[in-house]
Amino acid sequence: MDELTVNHLLGVENLTNNDFELIFNTANRFKEVINRPIKKVPSLRDITIANLFFENSTRTKLSFEIAEKRLSADVVNFSASQSSISKGETLVDTVNNILAMKVDMIVIRHPHPGSAMFLSENINSQIINAGDGTHEHPTQALLDCFSLKEKFGDLKGKHIAIIGDIIHSRVALSNIFALKALGAEVMICGPKSLLPKYSKSLKVKVETDLIKALRWCDAANILRVQNERMNLNFFPSTREYFKLYGLNKEKLELIKKPITILHPGPINRGVEITSEVADSENAIILDQVENGVAIRMAVIYLLASKIKNITN
Amino acid sequence: MDELTVNHLLGVENLTNNDFELIFNTANRFKEVINRPIKKVPSLRDITIANLFFENSTRTKLSFEIAEKRLSADVVNFSASQSSISKGETLVDTVNNILAMKVDMIVIRHPHPGSAMFLSENINSQIINAGDGTHEHPTQALLDCFSLKEKFGDLKGKHIAIIGDIIHSRVALSNIFALKALGAEVMICGPKSLLPKYSKSLKVKVETDLIKALRWCDAANILRVQNERMNLNFFPSTREYFKLYGLNKEKLELIKKPITILHPGPINRGVEITSEVADSENAIILDQVENGVAIRMAVIYLLASKIKNITN
Amino acid sequence: MDELTVNHLLGVENLTNNDFELIFNTANRFKEVINRPIKKVPSLRDITIANLFFENSTRTKLSFEIAEKRLSADVVNFSASQSSISKGETLVDTVNNILAMKVDMIVIRHPHPGSAMFLSENINSQIINAGDGTHEHPTQALLDCFSLKEKFGDLKGKHIAIIGDIIHSRVALSNIFALKALGAEVMICGPKSLLPKYSKSLKVKVETDLIKALRWCDAANILRVQNERMNLNFFPSTREYFKLYGLNKEKLELIKKPITILHPGPINRGVEITSEVADSENAIILDQVENGVAIRMAVIYLLASKIKNITN
Repeated sequence: MDELTVNHLLGVENLTNNDFELIFNTANRFKEVINRPIKKVPSLRDITIANLFFENSTRTKLSFEIAEKRLSADVVNFSASQSSISKGETLVDTVNNILAMKVDMIVIRHPHPGSAMFLSENINSQIINAGDGTHEHPTQALLDCFSLKEKFGDLKGKHIAIIGDIIHSRVALSNIFALKALGAEVMICGPKSLLPKYSKSLKVKVETDLIKALRWCDAANILRVQNERMNLNFFPSTREYFKLYGLNKEKLELIKKPITILHPGPINRGVEITSEVADSENAIILDQVENGVAIRMAVIYLLASKIKNITN
Repeated sequence: MDELTVNHLLGVENLTNNDFELIFNTANRFKEVINRPIKKVPSLRDITIANLFFENSTRTKLSFEIAEKRLSADVVNFSASQSSISKGETLVDTVNNILAMKVDMIVIRHPHPGSAMFLSENINSQIINAGDGTHEHPTQALLDCFSLKEKFGDLKGKHIAIIGDIIHSRVALSNIFALKALGAEVMICGPKSLLPKYSKSLKVKVETDLIKALRWCDAANILRVQNERMNLNFFPSTREYFKLYGLNKEKLELIKKPITILHPGPINRGVEITSEVADSENAIILDQVENGVAIRMAVIYLLASKIKNITN
Repeated sequence: MDELTVNHLLGVENLTNNDFELIFNTANRFKEVINRPIKKVPSLRDITIANLFFENSTRTKLSFEIAEKRLSADVVNFSASQSSISKGETLVDTVNNILAMKVDMIVIRHPHPGSAMFLSENINSQIINAGDGTHEHPTQALLDCFSLKEKFGDLKGKHIAIIGDIIHSRVALSNIFALKALGAEVMICGPKSLLPKYSKSLKVKVETDLIKALRWCDAANILRVQNERMNLNFFPSTREYFKLYGLNKEKLELIKKPITILHPGPINRGVEITSEVADSENAIILDQVENGVAIRMAVIYLLASKIKNITN
């Protein structure tokens, strides 16, 4: 069988085109599995996976947990509030302790950018990055691209706009890397205060006018407004944000063509997107969630198969 | 096989007599199962159930979780503190996200009355209400009635008193609906400040004198005093409450007949009931807990069998 | 098959030499199991175990949970923050409720010394003490001794020093009981303020000079400095502690012989031990963690086999 070129999923930045294809093909097979009456495969019966979440998370954590259970892996959960972190233990010590209990794979979300890579260099286990600060969130980008490919087929030459708080968003950064690798053209759009100064090096189009971005794109990935960042440094108020960057039916009617709408969730209805748009036919937000389980099953399965003889 | 008339368990108010009988008969079979050395059946191996608890809970959550495991369902747990609620997501969005991950059934406890029914009208899944604010707690009423039927056989004409903080109690309301449906006569008893103004519409006897209530009843369901409600609006002090409404041996001796004692737990020993009474032969408090697992297995099994072909 | 003399594991104080041998032999077999590609046995498929943690814990809780899963037991977790304790329920009521749901074994960590024994006297179930305040932590002592036996073979006559905050440490107390039962000579070493006044009754050597303790011992068990106890009552500062009792390479070079280093974790690197020492060849800290799973599997298996016919 074909193999990933990487031993960890730290980000999408280093994935080859072959890696993307392998992950998408495997996810396709698993999407079939989870839509059967019996939604499980016994593939990873011998594998124990620890989910280490040092940040709160609902959907990502649940999605990984369900993906692991569908593969019949043994799952142990570990969240920061129950942890020894407050007792002064280092991250490497925490993880090495867990590995000494014969855990085979680590899924980690951590507030510090680079934490997953740091771990991969200092411990002897496979690491999946479930979000490291403002850096990457690779499985989110993979599921977004997988969902776009379901809609468009090949992404080559497709126009994808990412809209909102780009500078603080690991979802944006991972999406940019993945979309460009798959041949799409990418635009970022948002208020200047939320666009990165290093946009040039990302080789993406930059736009501050939402209508122009919508006219340009085939699909728009609407990022969540993080209320905790609502202050004068970034933008004055939720109402102001909605007026300028909130996606509603009126703005979509202006551009006179249908565009596909993605959102990584959780949605702030009435802030970055209205209910009318979020629940419209062109929104594939719940497909993204479903595909998230299939993508995570694929990544876990492919990484596990690099170290183990797995019954297929 | 016989079927429930409902697709969700939102409350006991809408259950038919046939529904009650079906649930009790099924619970009887499952009570046998959980008293075998091997306490499990493979019935729901293909079903994934999410337990969504937006309020703290020990016994109800654990009871559901054990019931689900005894049926071999896959279980994912989700509690408010880990949730996206604080990120501004709506309840419907949260649940739709979970369902998109191919979850088959939702058990929900939520502080808002009507939340379970609201969900059932807005999402496409089976809902079990595990307590919605001060409204209903249907599995508690079912297990209480099941426990009473084990003691009395038919409940027709039996006198059941519910004692304590009626007005804030979903246990009381669900019990009233269920007991009356099963033909029992119901009395509520407590200080006036804790009795509802709408007692008339409930068609129950109302009593403020504990001794009179005890003389009248065959069984008394003693509600927990919720310490957080101990203020002058409701009653002055725990000591005062105990003096007037706390159940002790002396009061029971006055009435010169044995009555069956229920309590939904957790018990405040020395407040609404003394240890002597709680641990006496006539108390069936731990039977209630055991029956809770059997009742929850029955409800989950019967609802699941409405959508799935289940191996019996 | 041989049997334990105890029905609970409340502490190591009451274990016979036969009990120790039986636990270590069984742990040896399970250590083999967890190092196979398929790390599980079906032995306890019919057993449900509840982990009750009334104190925060990472490694101990995870270790028990993994041990239980490796034995194929059903596991339910319960932590204080989700619990009814705040609602005024007694510990015995909480546990009896859990047992009424047909749970077979209780693993309990609780801040009060004696809580595990108190439970064992008041409820009808098998109890494993996972740490009761400053009293005992028996599985930690068993895994420490098991790890030492792997290194030394017989412990008879071996010199073991326990270093640090002895007075607040359940690890220290359980280790003293176990090591002495196995024939080792034990020394406790630390600042006077952290040594118990009842040292005499423990029949151990007492030393306040770290270098002297290191010269004397074959192995040193370095206890964690609990930052919350850093005040003038016990010792003035972390820096002062490190200077006098922190284990570093320089101090070890002074004694001109290799000694085995244990640490129960979590480690405060640079406080009670330097990274150089913690990561050195003579440190068996991660072996302790691995052995912890094997020891806990052994204890659970042996206790369960006293009540159940278990497929071997």
